[in-house]
Amino acid sequence: MRLAYITASHSHPSHFTVLVRAIPWSQEESYGVKVAKFFTDYYSSSYLSHQMIYHSGAVQKLMTDAEKIYNMLKSNSMDQHYGSRLLRCGFCGGTSTSFKILSPEPENGRTTSCLDSPDLREKECGVALVFFRTRYAALVASEGLQQPNPMSWVTDLAPEPSDIYWSNLYVPYRIFWIRKIAILVAFILFVTFFLIPVVFTQSLVHLDKVEKIFPFMKDITERRFMKQLITGYLPSVILMIFLSIVPPIMMVFSTLEGSISRSGRKRSTCIKVLYFVIWNVFFANILTEAAIDHYQDSIMKLGDPKTIPNQLAKAVPSTATFFVTYVLTSGWASLSCELIQPFPLLYNSFYRFILRNKDDSSYGSYTFPYHTEVPRVLLFGLLGFTCSVLAPLILPFLLVYFFLAYLVYRNQILDVYVTKYQSGGLYWPIIHNTTIFSLVLTQIIALGVFGIKRSPIASSFTIPLIICTLLFHEYCRQRFHPVFKKTPAKTIIDMDREDEHSGRMEEIYQKLPSAYFQINSESRSLGKSLELNCPEIQANSRETGNISRLEDLETPGKMSARLP
Amino acid sequence: MRLAYITASHSHPSHFTVLVRAIPWSQEESYGVKVAKFFTDYYSSSYLSHQMIYHSGAVQKLMTDAEKIYNMLKSNSMDQHYGSRLLRCGFCGGTSTSFKILSPEPENGRTTSCLDSPDLREKECGVALVFFRTRYAALVASEGLQQPNPMSWVTDLAPEPSDIYWSNLYVPYRIFWIRKIAILVAFILFVTFFLIPVVFTQSLVHLDKVEKIFPFMKDITERRFMKQLITGYLPSVILMIFLSIVPPIMMVFSTLEGSISRSGRKRSTCIKVLYFVIWNVFFANILTEAAIDHYQDSIMKLGDPKTIPNQLAKAVPSTATFFVTYVLTSGWASLSCELIQPFPLLYNSFYRFILRNKDDSSYGSYTFPYHTEVPRVLLFGLLGFTCSVLAPLILPFLLVYFFLAYLVYRNQILDVYVTKYQSGGLYWPIIHNTTIFSLVLTQIIALGVFGIKRSPIASSFTIPLIICTLLFHEYCRQRFHPVFKKTPAKTIIDMDREDEHSGRMEEIYQKLPSAYFQINSESRSLGKSLELNCPEIQANSRETGNISRLEDLETPGKMSARLP
Repeated sequence: MRLAYITASHSHPSHFTVLVRAIPWSQEESYGVKVAKFFTDYYSSSYLSHQMIYHSGAVQKLMTDAEKIYNMLKSNSMDQHYGSRLLRCGFCGGTSTSFKILSPEPENGRTTSCLDSPDLREKECGVALVFFRTRYAALVASEGLQQPNPMSWVTDLAPEPSDIYWSNLYVPYRIFWIRKIAILVAFILFVTFFLIPVVFTQSLVHLDKVEKIFPFMKDITERRFMKQLITGYLPSVILMIFLSIVPPIMMVFSTLEGSISRSGRKRSTCIKVLYFVIWNVFFANILTEAAIDHYQDSIMKLGDPKTIPNQLAKAVPSTATFFVTYVLTSGWASLSCELIQPFPLLYNSFYRFILRNKDDSSYGSYTFPYHTEVPRVLLFGLLGFTCSVLAPLILPFLLVYFFLAYLVYRNQILDVYVTKYQSGGLYWPIIHNTTIFSLVLTQIIALGVFGIKRSPIASSFTIPLIICTLLFHEYCRQRFHPVFKKTPAKTIIDMDREDEHSGRMEEIYQKLPSAYFQINSESRSLGKSLELNCPEIQANSRETGNISRLEDLETPGKMSARLP
Repeated sequence: MRLAYITASHSHPSHFTVLVRAIPWSQEESYGVKVAKFFTDYYSSSYLSHQMIYHSGAVQKLMTDAEKIYNMLKSNSMDQHYGSRLLRCGFCGGTSTSFKILSPEPENGRTTSCLDSPDLREKECGVALVFFRTRYAALVASEGLQQPNPMSWVTDLAPEPSDIYWSNLYVPYRIFWIRKIAILVAFILFVTFFLIPVVFTQSLVHLDKVEKIFPFMKDITERRFMKQLITGYLPSVILMIFLSIVPPIMMVFSTLEGSISRSGRKRSTCIKVLYFVIWNVFFANILTEAAIDHYQDSIMKLGDPKTIPNQLAKAVPSTATFFVTYVLTSGWASLSCELIQPFPLLYNSFYRFILRNKDDSSYGSYTFPYHTEVPRVLLFGLLGFTCSVLAPLILPFLLVYFFLAYLVYRNQILDVYVTKYQSGGLYWPIIHNTTIFSLVLTQIIALGVFGIKRSPIASSFTIPLIICTLLFHEYCRQRFHPVFKKTPAKTIIDMDREDEHSGRMEEIYQKLPSAYFQINSESRSLGKSLELNCPEIQANSRETGNISRLEDLETPGKMSARLP
């Protein structure tokens, strides 16, 4: 399916584009000249043109803010429709006809200095988008090592235009490796210290046992209602509240890590949240359970590898009650939240009825939150697998959840969320790995259960099962995983040929240089308004097909480019 | 230095050659036709020709054996010199003038069927060497993924002609992944069960403590001489004997893993032996020491991560005596062994004076045994680093060892061993990683020592030191390691251009198709004799520069090849 996706995405400009980072600085030449020289020299047959990336400096930020305020003030007087885009459902505010652009505005102060600026060179930031004649040439340039110094001229296949994460391109490439290490350390610390609320949660479930350790708790738990509330519902709610702050923090982590694309950032967040959730919800609960149950003797034994299956087999059924509640509170409730979208609803109501603002353009259209939903679904899968051996009561709840989730997510993806960019099936390896992990864990628990029940034959039949699962996983990794990392040359060359035969190549070349706008999401409307204000550039753009849209406006000056 | 090595190796045919494995089988076409079609289709501008690899079947084996016996019988009557090669020193048997070839021999039964055979297609084994016009094209073809199925058309840069390991090319590619897993499991089991002799060794050093546990030992150790022998020298000797069987076993493991080159196999063996030696000599000794010292209480505490620095700080000085002896027996003794080369000497004496055979051609010329020597030197480095904090008495012994080792290895590499292929500096990452590991371990031990001595300031100053060392390592990994995995495009393209400008390219193209002989080391002389016997092929080879040497003789038939 990934290959089918690649083959189907015929007109994507990202296939022809390579993002070059860490261009070395020199006194004599600007980055732009360097890029042109390097690629004309070494990729002369396939190099088409390039586009420099410029710092979005303080001036632009001020302008963006001014533009925003101007938008808010003006929004009542304008009603011009611009295109039709699939926006959020009408209940939440946005409609497909509510996207507006600004009218031409002659008093904009920047348009006069459109094509000449003395500080052009200072604003280049050592990053360029290089366009190639064929997909294959771009692929080759992106996969290889360009220079003897691997920390300069770093090439990657460019993300889709709306997927590219501009802010990280302004950051020098050489500090990302140290940032990654810092983020890893921060992540480990975060996961470790998050154990505190989790342990607290789990101790509430076993109030009777906690009472034995802390006798002063008895006064609180004497009332029946309080006890039911504390043991039944409160732990899940507390855990939910604590967990809701995790995805934003992980998103900040992933942003700092230096992903060049929004989808890559979201995927990285997804992996972090997944690790977090599996460790802190699943294992931490089970370990706390085991520790509370045997707090007097077996904490030392917990680390002993031989007893792990038995420990798991004992601990999983006793935490099953909690997990059933968790499925109800986190799973079912999250689905209804997903349908109602309370936060956008509140935000929109506040924006519309308190601020009396009827313009919707500033109301961001969200993409699907893979980084919260994928880990949740996978966690429920893990719960289903592991509890199925000893506490199958959880399964009907999960079945209902998965059935509802299918309906809800299908609706949300089709009708509510905006698909700005494709993830290209890159979540699949994450899902596959987690499912195999769940399966192996289930089998280890089964091993423990058979061990406790003194059934050596059943135990010994479980071991080949585990080995076969791992072998299957390894086979899949060998057979399917490389396609998610590298694109097969055959597929790409075939696509190139097809386009060449059908004569579509020229059309693609025309579109290519104008495909990437260097704008942040909030300055998108600014870009549109600026473009309308600068007819000189529009004409230029049409005549030469050159790169001369927003990045020229923001940091004026024409790109150096070799035309076909 | 690696880049300088790549740039300097101008005439290597391996730069132009890609080894294609796992060519899919089909009823209609032979492998050869498929390879030609695929590369003409997708690499039409740079594809030069190709050479199929054939199974070395049973017939050839028989012939090789016959040839060997014939060699032995004939060797007295012939005295023709063939070229001059750097062979082993005269004392061990070989001289630079003792390499002989066979005279033309018309009664060879196979020469008549030189160029026509019906079973040609059956003997192809889905592996081909593909020659490209430029180094860069070969690099690109080797780095990318060719097909949607990553387990077919697997491409790698070919090793040097004398470095290629033919036997592994006959094995179907699809079973290597499962072999690798099996080898990994076997390796872990081997390392685990090897603990038994190591523990036995270490217990001999601490005879007085062992006596307390096993009182019956007292009778044996009553004599002073016996006691000195047992505690002082015997442990090292036993360990040496056990360790000497490790490298051959690891070599078998690495062979089964499916390395395509001899140097790759040796490197893989080197890594395995290194892990083995560090774990089984260093850690096992220290752990045994710690276990014997505190056998009554602290075995449980051994696994506790907090006490690891302290445990190490206590255990290392008490094992220092053993390690000093180990440096003497293993280090100094191995150097003298290296100089005398007792095994080749004995083998050669036996071969010459008992079997009365004066022909030296069957006496293999060895390449440098990196897989035994590199781990040994690195282990001594580790011992030096870790013991330097608490038992610096080992350092003078090591200094003498390293000084002698420099002299001995320099002499051996320059004058004794044959350099059949270059390793291309690929041992450097192994050495770097091990040295960083030694350094970090030393700093952890220092931390433990300061902890025992109750010096919190010194302890806290050690922690930033560890962090800095790890950061330095990570920086080196980012900055230098990629060059060991991928070749920079710039370097390769510059080399191509230089050759094109100087007109050397044509000369290289001429040499290219005849660079790779599909022969095993033992059938090398057979190859020569067959070539001399088949003037038809020699003429053909000279005229067209085509691939028509030994592989044509062994499995007759002409290659399909596109000439420049």
